[in-house]
Amino acid sequence: MTLKIGVIGTGAIGQDHTRRINEVLAGARVTALNDVNRANAETCQRQYAPEARIFDDPHALIRDADVDAVLVCSWGQTHEEYVLAAVAAGKPCFCEKPLATTAEGARRIVEAEQAAGKRLVQVGFMRRYDPGYVALKKAVSEVTGAPLMVHAAHRNPRVGENYVTPMAIHDTLIHEIDVLRWLLDDDYTSARVFFPRKSPRAHEKLRDPQVVVLETAGGVVIDVEVFVNCHYGYDIQCEIVGEDGIARLPEPMGIQTRSGAVLGQPILMDWKDRFIDSYDYELADFLKAAAQGTAAGPTAWDGYVAAVTADACVAAQEAEGQAVSIDLPARPSLYA
Amino acid sequence: MTLKIGVIGTGAIGQDHTRRINEVLAGARVTALNDVNRANAETCQRQYAPEARIFDDPHALIRDADVDAVLVCSWGQTHEEYVLAAVAAGKPCFCEKPLATTAEGARRIVEAEQAAGKRLVQVGFMRRYDPGYVALKKAVSEVTGAPLMVHAAHRNPRVGENYVTPMAIHDTLIHEIDVLRWLLDDDYTSARVFFPRKSPRAHEKLRDPQVVVLETAGGVVIDVEVFVNCHYGYDIQCEIVGEDGIARLPEPMGIQTRSGAVLGQPILMDWKDRFIDSYDYELADFLKAAAQGTAAGPTAWDGYVAAVTADACVAAQEAEGQAVSIDLPARPSLYA
Amino acid sequence: MTLKIGVIGTGAIGQDHTRRINEVLAGARVTALNDVNRANAETCQRQYAPEARIFDDPHALIRDADVDAVLVCSWGQTHEEYVLAAVAAGKPCFCEKPLATTAEGARRIVEAEQAAGKRLVQVGFMRRYDPGYVALKKAVSEVTGAPLMVHAAHRNPRVGENYVTPMAIHDTLIHEIDVLRWLLDDDYTSARVFFPRKSPRAHEKLRDPQVVVLETAGGVVIDVEVFVNCHYGYDIQCEIVGEDGIARLPEPMGIQTRSGAVLGQPILMDWKDRFIDSYDYELADFLKAAAQGTAAGPTAWDGYVAAVTADACVAAQEAEGQAVSIDLPARPSLYA
Amino acid sequence: MTLKIGVIGTGAIGQDHTRRINEVLAGARVTALNDVNRANAETCQRQYAPEARIFDDPHALIRDADVDAVLVCSWGQTHEEYVLAAVAAGKPCFCEKPLATTAEGARRIVEAEQAAGKRLVQVGFMRRYDPGYVALKKAVSEVTGAPLMVHAAHRNPRVGENYVTPMAIHDTLIHEIDVLRWLLDDDYTSARVFFPRKSPRAHEKLRDPQVVVLETAGGVVIDVEVFVNCHYGYDIQCEIVGEDGIARLPEPMGIQTRSGAVLGQPILMDWKDRFIDSYDYELADFLKAAAQGTAAGPTAWDGYVAAVTADACVAAQEAEGQAVSIDLPARPSLYA
Repeated sequence: MTLKIGVIGTGAIGQDHTRRINEVLAGARVTALNDVNRANAETCQRQYAPEARIFDDPHALIRDADVDAVLVCSWGQTHEEYVLAAVAAGKPCFCEKPLATTAEGARRIVEAEQAAGKRLVQVGFMRRYDPGYVALKKAVSEVTGAPLMVHAAHRNPRVGENYVTPMAIHDTLIHEIDVLRWLLDDDYTSARVFFPRKSPRAHEKLRDPQVVVLETAGGVVIDVEVFVNCHYGYDIQCEIVGEDGIARLPEPMGIQTRSGAVLGQPILMDWKDRFIDSYDYELADFLKAAAQGTAAGPTAWDGYVAAVTADACVAAQEAEGQAVSIDLPARPSLYA
Repeated sequence: MTLKIGVIGTGAIGQDHTRRINEVLAGARVTALNDVNRANAETCQRQYAPEARIFDDPHALIRDADVDAVLVCSWGQTHEEYVLAAVAAGKPCFCEKPLATTAEGARRIVEAEQAAGKRLVQVGFMRRYDPGYVALKKAVSEVTGAPLMVHAAHRNPRVGENYVTPMAIHDTLIHEIDVLRWLLDDDYTSARVFFPRKSPRAHEKLRDPQVVVLETAGGVVIDVEVFVNCHYGYDIQCEIVGEDGIARLPEPMGIQTRSGAVLGQPILMDWKDRFIDSYDYELADFLKAAAQGTAAGPTAWDGYVAAVTADACVAAQEAEGQAVSIDLPARPSLYA
Repeated sequence: MTLKIGVIGTGAIGQDHTRRINEVLAGARVTALNDVNRANAETCQRQYAPEARIFDDPHALIRDADVDAVLVCSWGQTHEEYVLAAVAAGKPCFCEKPLATTAEGARRIVEAEQAAGKRLVQVGFMRRYDPGYVALKKAVSEVTGAPLMVHAAHRNPRVGENYVTPMAIHDTLIHEIDVLRWLLDDDYTSARVFFPRKSPRAHEKLRDPQVVVLETAGGVVIDVEVFVNCHYGYDIQCEIVGEDGIARLPEPMGIQTRSGAVLGQPILMDWKDRFIDSYDYELADFLKAAAQGTAAGPTAWDGYVAAVTADACVAAQEAEGQAVSIDLPARPSLYA
Repeated sequence: MTLKIGVIGTGAIGQDHTRRINEVLAGARVTALNDVNRANAETCQRQYAPEARIFDDPHALIRDADVDAVLVCSWGQTHEEYVLAAVAAGKPCFCEKPLATTAEGARRIVEAEQAAGKRLVQVGFMRRYDPGYVALKKAVSEVTGAPLMVHAAHRNPRVGENYVTPMAIHDTLIHEIDVLRWLLDDDYTSARVFFPRKSPRAHEKLRDPQVVVLETAGGVVIDVEVFVNCHYGYDIQCEIVGEDGIARLPEPMGIQTRSGAVLGQPILMDWKDRFIDSYDYELADFLKAAAQGTAAGPTAWDGYVAAVTADACVAAQEAEGQAVSIDLPARPSLYA
């Protein structure tokens, strides 16, 4: 039985997921497309999904009998509305990050899903599907002993003029916020931000780099370097220090060469290449769960916690060095 | 349009390809199964292909209108017969290695395919699809300059009692024989084999390790260590030395840990894990070409050249240190 | 001409320096020995310096005409007294760390040396002579661009019962305090300390691990993990993140092996092996300068700044997370 | 007691050893200098040994009462004569490679030393003192199990016009010939040479690269790539494959950097930097033994075996692929 998928939002990521479903992964077909700009949906239809119907109304798409599950890939401001509609329709829903643009919005989705009584939402935190992080989590349970510290870095070669200081949290650190919680199986209790001297490559409205220090309920101290004008490459580092030893995220596969007095291997420059396989794996996981009428992977609760933590980190940017506490309500049993 | 696939031989690899087509890859379904032992086919049907029909006669399967393309995963002795039948039926055919158990058999397939006037056969040399080898080939063209030497190693932790000296060529070196030709875009002209002192772990009928020296038409000298009782892991090494520099096949992804006075990363023990992604990629490539009525990837000619080279290497085992020449007919234009 | 050296304090390090001068390095001889316990001096004489005279009074040793330069290797509490005496005698003096047990004591030495009008004191911060740090400093000036952040770690497998929380600063972090200043050519302005959950291996009076965050006058943010019960090895890490790139302290030389499913190299367990060559290099540098009647390498001022910084870090341990500022007087011109 | 050293031959290496003895190492002084060109000896005296006397007759230098031990650093053709004279005078003698320019010449030294009844000669095979090779030898005894194969490479970025094909053996491979024997504690029984396509960078009278295959009495098969126009760096590789695992010579210490999309570390370009510490260690070992009236390290027998093996390898260059056998007389008991 082939699962029928409706895609809302056919920009870059929506098109890519459509291609993935129709040309790469087994078990599903895209049957419905919607975009705020109909021409986008038509382009996507032409390229990847000639059999799909185009809907002008995303709510009609969600309700349509020929749609078993929904992908929300539209503009962030609209995520909450469409996810809530999918939950209301009882249809599994994969939502690109952010789950909602506010913690309150994410909270409303959590409550709706609880009311539905079963998981229907997967959030697009793809790093949990990266084979490197998966192996790192395994090494934490098998080699390092209980974690005490994490040293991490998120580096981009450069960002555009429109990237301002809080985006270092909402668009960049957000990935570490989710994946480190998952690696540690723990929650954050406070955040601090330190600003080194600003890189001459950073734009006027951006303080870059930043060092974020997070503490967890379990007593782990985490430092994350966020440096989005590092120039040399797109580079994600993560090292877990445990009671018995250390484990480190592997470098992306690259050919080691000896040439011109250098023993080297390439560093990626484009973030899109870094977790490219993870998009396939997260979507395959979604399709598998959706075929059973439910959802797997990162939950609405994870999306909510990420939103609360990100808000605290932005407050910590303004408090410069002072701790901002992170308070979470009790975890609902649906997400135990 | 979904491609309909018939699978001949539902042992381990045949079952795995069936699972791959029905549960992992887009675009195809297994519609027909055959195995010399019908119970095997039923198990495969139950687990991975409940909609498939079981055929007692593999030739009936090949001819069936509900089969667009064929996978030959049966016992090596039968490959030639079924591949020739698929070619005769004008159907794309993926054949696990060996293409045939003799060079003459492989040659007959080459001739049949030439007579068919288009490519219909892909041989299961999956290493060409390994992201490491693909990146290595790119590095050869971009970094090393024209190759002069290759240093390679194929190591297994251990082999069973039934593994005798010539199998080090036919079952083990065969992968290097194919993938090095492809990396270098060159053909072999001679082979030599050197036998170091025998490992105490090698069984009575096996001389292990071996060092094979191959020379190519382009003047490249290749040394390949074949060591199938190396004890410590399954380990594939390949280093290309060119006029300007060197490129080396990457180690498989592994978490670097610091623990117990060792900075280490795991080495695989099981060959099945080493090129696990390549099986997906080779089959996806086959399905894509088969949907166009043709074949891609390693050709029947490649299968033939591998057979001729392997025969020379086995002769070189007996000649111990003396060169055995490798003579090939002109390459047919179909494979230019 | 052979330089005549008097050694005060012939415990482990004093004996080792005596051996170094008499058996390893060119240009000097130990002619005089003193120890609070005369038997120690006799042992040292017997093993490494049969021609040396034993002095019961360290001040007599310092004044003796047959002593051109002095090594102070006695108990820390006595360093200030003997270094001041050597400076008063106008003799070059190598002093093991700490230069003095208080910042005020170190300050008095700085003042005495200024009064002497030339450098006479070298402090035993041997890491500046480690070929790895030397190469790292070169890479900072040639590759990374101006530094913005430093990530460092100082890990010991274990410590004894007598090692209490402030010793993580005075005995352990003290090396990073000196070497990072030297690497960055910068001074500290504030310190913070964060305490993760305590390792179950840490003794009752020790909070371990710790994360120290230092900020510099030049705007560099430094995080240093101090973990003295890390169990797996003695491990020193240092990574400099600059405007253009990153440079990392190399791992100590070790043989890479493939064995038992692990690709590994050894991690040192004993701190004495980590910077073993640096002791030779620092002392050779001292002898060379002393032959000219002066001193080279880490200065009394460096010793003073290290003491001030260490005091601030200990205060920061008590302030847990709050910044403690580090204020230094103007750098005297002798140390410009 | 300071050992008095006479140096014959004050070219680059003779000057460097003079500096080493007078300015770096403990325990000895250069008291006598000789060079076929007296001006060279005067330059050396002025720079490194103002107290040394200059001799016009090297035999007078060897006999002089103020010379305890001799360094032979003159032109290779003269080595045999001066070493024999030192042995006749009963004085320890360090001889730069080659011990003699013919196997017969080396044999005469072996016989003279046997007649003297004790070791007096050390040959300048400095690689045995390299900390990397020393650690590799330790790993062979502790990790790999009994060796079965060796893969090695000796690469130079380029050579001058005067470097002709046999020099790849006598000047380059000679180091592997000695150090691999020492690593394996074994002797060679045959040699073969294979010539890949010639590098376009190789001069007219040089076939480059070459692959040398050596077999040992213990059944080890060794392949050594010799490539003296490899362009990218001076690079020495050595991997020992044993019954239980593998050990690999470490890369020279280098800072790992991330810069311009490359994760890299420098490769040396100049051979003089590669084993720079080993010259200190070999000479310190010589001085220590010479102070006892004898010699340590690589023996005259090692020099003789290297000469015999090198001759066989040059014959193997002409036999192209055919085995040339290596026959040695029984090892004299002095060298057991």
